[in-house]
Amino acid sequence: MTRFASFAELRAACLDLPGGFPDAEADVARREARLTKPPGSLGRLEEAVAWLGLWQGLSPPRLDNVEILVFAGNHGVTAQGVSAYPAEVTAQMVANFAVGGAAINQLARVASAELRVIALDLDRPTADFTREPAMHELDFLEAVAAGYDALSPEVDLVVLGEMGIGNTTAAAAVSAALFGGGGARFAGLGTGIDDQGLKRKRRAIDQALAQHSNALGDPLRIAAALGGRELAAILGAALAARHAHIPVLLDGFVSTAAVAPLKKLRADALDHALAGHRSAEAGHRLLLEELGLHPLLDLGMRLGEGSGATVAVLVLRAALACHTGMATFAEAHVSDKDA
Amino acid sequence: MTRFASFAELRAACLDLPGGFPDAEADVARREARLTKPPGSLGRLEEAVAWLGLWQGLSPPRLDNVEILVFAGNHGVTAQGVSAYPAEVTAQMVANFAVGGAAINQLARVASAELRVIALDLDRPTADFTREPAMHELDFLEAVAAGYDALSPEVDLVVLGEMGIGNTTAAAAVSAALFGGGGARFAGLGTGIDDQGLKRKRRAIDQALAQHSNALGDPLRIAAALGGRELAAILGAALAARHAHIPVLLDGFVSTAAVAPLKKLRADALDHALAGHRSAEAGHRLLLEELGLHPLLDLGMRLGEGSGATVAVLVLRAALACHTGMATFAEAHVSDKDA
Repeated sequence: MTRFASFAELRAACLDLPGGFPDAEADVARREARLTKPPGSLGRLEEAVAWLGLWQGLSPPRLDNVEILVFAGNHGVTAQGVSAYPAEVTAQMVANFAVGGAAINQLARVASAELRVIALDLDRPTADFTREPAMHELDFLEAVAAGYDALSPEVDLVVLGEMGIGNTTAAAAVSAALFGGGGARFAGLGTGIDDQGLKRKRRAIDQALAQHSNALGDPLRIAAALGGRELAAILGAALAARHAHIPVLLDGFVSTAAVAPLKKLRADALDHALAGHRSAEAGHRLLLEELGLHPLLDLGMRLGEGSGATVAVLVLRAALACHTGMATFAEAHVSDKDA
Repeated sequence: MTRFASFAELRAACLDLPGGFPDAEADVARREARLTKPPGSLGRLEEAVAWLGLWQGLSPPRLDNVEILVFAGNHGVTAQGVSAYPAEVTAQMVANFAVGGAAINQLARVASAELRVIALDLDRPTADFTREPAMHELDFLEAVAAGYDALSPEVDLVVLGEMGIGNTTAAAAVSAALFGGGGARFAGLGTGIDDQGLKRKRRAIDQALAQHSNALGDPLRIAAALGGRELAAILGAALAARHAHIPVLLDGFVSTAAVAPLKKLRADALDHALAGHRSAEAGHRLLLEELGLHPLLDLGMRLGEGSGATVAVLVLRAALACHTGMATFAEAHVSDKDA
């Protein structure tokens, strides 16, 4: 069982990160160049395979075991009327995941990925962060450790998703705290609030930023004060993945906001992560730009649950199939460009 | 065996098109609204399922039999030095398709789609259209009919792809003839020509537009004079799909340019077609805008062979799996927004 005893100890783990395996990446590129297609003509499919090789240290890379981790949490800030759905929907959706009725269950099946759902103290919502920190230090560190330990160390790729009524408010608050701009910049319609709800959401974020102004200099304190347990767990899982040489596919706004503090701590901390999908949730585009992430897909989805990233798993499977299955120019007796 | 005896007879077939099935589309929308997710939160996945229902006339729609048709042709305009690869690569790649070594073979397998390759008189390239029409009327109509008959009438979805050294020049010429702008507007790097090659390509297109100025008022004469056999066959297959109530996924620049004349003949002629992927080939973005098509994917691919659209098949499979497999709010005992 992983245990981070303090912000300082977690910060140390976030700063001490292994790099990738450039030899494997170069090996992938060498094979890619010999395949029967004009160089670069598979675009992001080629880039994705090279990225898998770099972070797995394997040529060819593997996608035999793909895991989707969906962390669920509840949020005290829902007291401010920031969501279109009641807070009990978080637990109801976790039950729906368990019986296979949600979107992510269907997508996991199509992507041949293993879905695991980790509910984090749903009966104990975080505090309303307009008034006090969402989590105190030890509560936050416990959620980070839960995410860290949830990752199966033998998987080839992990998708990090979430479920939590109210959590786009937390994601917007974390994003604004890290990158500036206040509630107006990152708050969006979430699951579908109306104009009044959006005003309440923006106000709640601005109140929270004022309330926790003394935490804003520290990315981990921001995550504790303004985030949520499922966001903390995603941060922990992304960190564990880096230490275990496992590439990560991020999902939407919440999933991305959850890992954003890592990038603030160390500029290359998210190099093992790819953005699977650009959410229709307004703040996501801005946050991706701040992080320099270029999502594979842009399908107007805004569901969370790891759904967008799991569709992106299909693209990675297509990419890997081309890389491993195609003939070389020599094998196929096709004239190369320079021949 | 379909036979179009004249431009006039083909034009009549292009103008006499069945519509979709709005009842099936409405039925799909009714089920979609009851599924355990915020309304619209699956974005283009929801739209795609509704579109399949509309054109198949089925609720739920089906993707049991997906066919990829790849038409191959050779082009006399290669004499103008417009391609980075020699013309014999077309036949070599057709042989590569036959033994399963190309990208599209791997993608078809991942997408559980049936690949069929139809080579059109590869030993008899079209004429160099800088000097005479690529095809005369009957030659063109024969290629259209070959495409029309290639479509299996029982499939649920068809992907229209192509292979043909020199065919981005033909696609650019057809696009410029239909939408204006000359060689500079639609010519791109194709499989990877250099700057000198791009100049030759632009010049060839401008010469062709001048040479065939008397054909420019008629979309079908444009397709004959400036297109190619594989483009004509794609036009025929897209027309057959409309008559047989089969939705179409278009691939890249050449696939899209091939069907563009249909849209010029009748504004709603491509409503049963979705653009699968926006090619990195420069002209494709412009052409999609001219046609009002919004591609599902934008992965920087520029290979042809139906490859981009076949990756998009995966998105449609994901979409349909959500639509058919998800629980409703009532089934899952999840509180709805308005509850």
